[in-house]
Amino acid sequence: MSLTEKLKFKTLEWAGDHLRVLDQTRLPEETVYLECDTVDEIASAIKDLKVRGAPAIGIAAAFGVAMGMRKREFQSWNELEDELRRVISILAGTRPTAVNLFWALERMRKAAKTHHEESPGQISQFLLQEAITIHEEDKSMCERIGEFGSSLLKDGDTVLTHCNAGALATGGIGTALGIIYTATWQGKKISVFSDETRPVLQGSRLTVWELQQQGIDVTLICDNTAAAVMRSGKIDSVIVGADRVASNGDVANKIGTYSVAVLAHHHGIPFYVAAPSSSFDPAIPDGGKIEIEERSSEEVTDSFGKRTAPAGSDVYCPAFDVTPAELVTAYITEKGVESR
Amino acid sequence: MSLTEKLKFKTLEWAGDHLRVLDQTRLPEETVYLECDTVDEIASAIKDLKVRGAPAIGIAAAFGVAMGMRKREFQSWNELEDELRRVISILAGTRPTAVNLFWALERMRKAAKTHHEESPGQISQFLLQEAITIHEEDKSMCERIGEFGSSLLKDGDTVLTHCNAGALATGGIGTALGIIYTATWQGKKISVFSDETRPVLQGSRLTVWELQQQGIDVTLICDNTAAAVMRSGKIDSVIVGADRVASNGDVANKIGTYSVAVLAHHHGIPFYVAAPSSSFDPAIPDGGKIEIEERSSEEVTDSFGKRTAPAGSDVYCPAFDVTPAELVTAYITEKGVESR
Repeated sequence: MSLTEKLKFKTLEWAGDHLRVLDQTRLPEETVYLECDTVDEIASAIKDLKVRGAPAIGIAAAFGVAMGMRKREFQSWNELEDELRRVISILAGTRPTAVNLFWALERMRKAAKTHHEESPGQISQFLLQEAITIHEEDKSMCERIGEFGSSLLKDGDTVLTHCNAGALATGGIGTALGIIYTATWQGKKISVFSDETRPVLQGSRLTVWELQQQGIDVTLICDNTAAAVMRSGKIDSVIVGADRVASNGDVANKIGTYSVAVLAHHHGIPFYVAAPSSSFDPAIPDGGKIEIEERSSEEVTDSFGKRTAPAGSDVYCPAFDVTPAELVTAYITEKGVESR
Repeated sequence: MSLTEKLKFKTLEWAGDHLRVLDQTRLPEETVYLECDTVDEIASAIKDLKVRGAPAIGIAAAFGVAMGMRKREFQSWNELEDELRRVISILAGTRPTAVNLFWALERMRKAAKTHHEESPGQISQFLLQEAITIHEEDKSMCERIGEFGSSLLKDGDTVLTHCNAGALATGGIGTALGIIYTATWQGKKISVFSDETRPVLQGSRLTVWELQQQGIDVTLICDNTAAAVMRSGKIDSVIVGADRVASNGDVANKIGTYSVAVLAHHHGIPFYVAAPSSSFDPAIPDGGKIEIEERSSEEVTDSFGKRTAPAGSDVYCPAFDVTPAELVTAYITEKGVESR
């Protein structure tokens, strides 16, 4: 049995004629699956964070292209390309920071072009096959990141993570959490501290949930508690994911990642970034050039079902921050561990 | 008009025969005052965080002693002392970290002893007078901290603060926020970034509310966003309060304060602690000896009417952390600014 098959839930699953998506906005209270048939349904699921995490967004978008283009006969490449452009633009408009989204859309565009030239009538089948391939590649990418990363963990280690770079963020076992699963399945005892990750609480809602599902010891803390836990000597390493890595090694990831990186540096704790090579964007020279999505202020002021700040509060709510390369101890990709 | 009189609300007010307490758990949605008649009502208000902030807790506790001992005739100092011990123990059992609580209770005990010897029949009146004096001293303490601290702020400065060390935390204009009010009333333009301060959100619920009441420009951020804001160059200084300062200068304050101190240090931003000298505890040699209250895990998992972590999650939820003295640029007390 592969490590991916040991997972007790499926974040994304091609159900023969539609994409089944675990609705992450309903976790941890309810395990609800969305049955997505159309490109618009996929786009909404991405935009509303029902599916999130850079690799999972890329996979969902690839299936979105396949569904948007299916059951269609095109008379010419121009006609096909017009429609493909429309479908891709719907998906590209969902979230600006995750490079995997654009990487997956570009790959689908190229696949359409190649296969249309070969066999114009069967474009729908080819696009679906490409999306399935992207998903399968993601699963094996996660397993390879898990194996490379687990070499950095010792039996008895405690790892701090931020946000969710787990199975819920990918098509497989996850990136940061995939390393923890792999080390655990190799027989190492690994404990985890999970930052709750305001404002959307991916840490408490998603990371704690999925680690519990897999039987991993996890302690939830507020984001502002990580420093005190590090000072107490409990944390052996920090592992986080990445939404986009610039060519100089600067890392865009969930807001608060930079804070954790500075704190790890201050306490002499290794800070690892686990991400597929598709998250590395050679077109971006440094982190200052990465577009940072700002989310609605209501995510901060009203997210717990109760208003927690005065009406009309000014709020600064970036979804991501940038960690400069010099704070990263090593990058863990499907190709290996690259220390700085 | 004194600066204290310019405040648009009263955190604590002696209403002639009872203590009126602004219920901080109802802010920012509702401005509700509790009318507290008995020591048990005061103790509950402190324990349930309806009144919070080290100086305000001390004042409320002093009035609690006065109310617990009033309308009583004692035949002997022993009889009075037994009852006083009972009343004080009710209040002392509310919250363990704020030294002002114990300082105020000890002062009330001494006042009872002195005045009982002088005039045993009028103990109630003397105790009430002592509580009123403690409150008045707190008001002028805040104003002096405000004046000393405002010398550190320039026109146009932006200050980051954590939790609430404001008028809501004291009997006067506050400590950290008192400095901001004083600088503003002196004609300086001061802007504030307020950490929301998980889990109880004193920053978003209380600091943003009271700064808005006073017309100060304030931007709310999640705790994990402070690092990114500091990196952007927007923050000129950090000012926080303190619940207890050890004799070596280590500071116990709201969880997350240590995180902010490390981040300020990394970014070369001055980190100031504003607190009355009654928060300095000469009996505690260093921060490692300060008892740190742990709060219920529900404050993290269920705090705002919605469950945000899986049932049965392990949670580490300290109410405070300790910032080592070497990260403090200066202490601002009613006696002056003491740089390290």
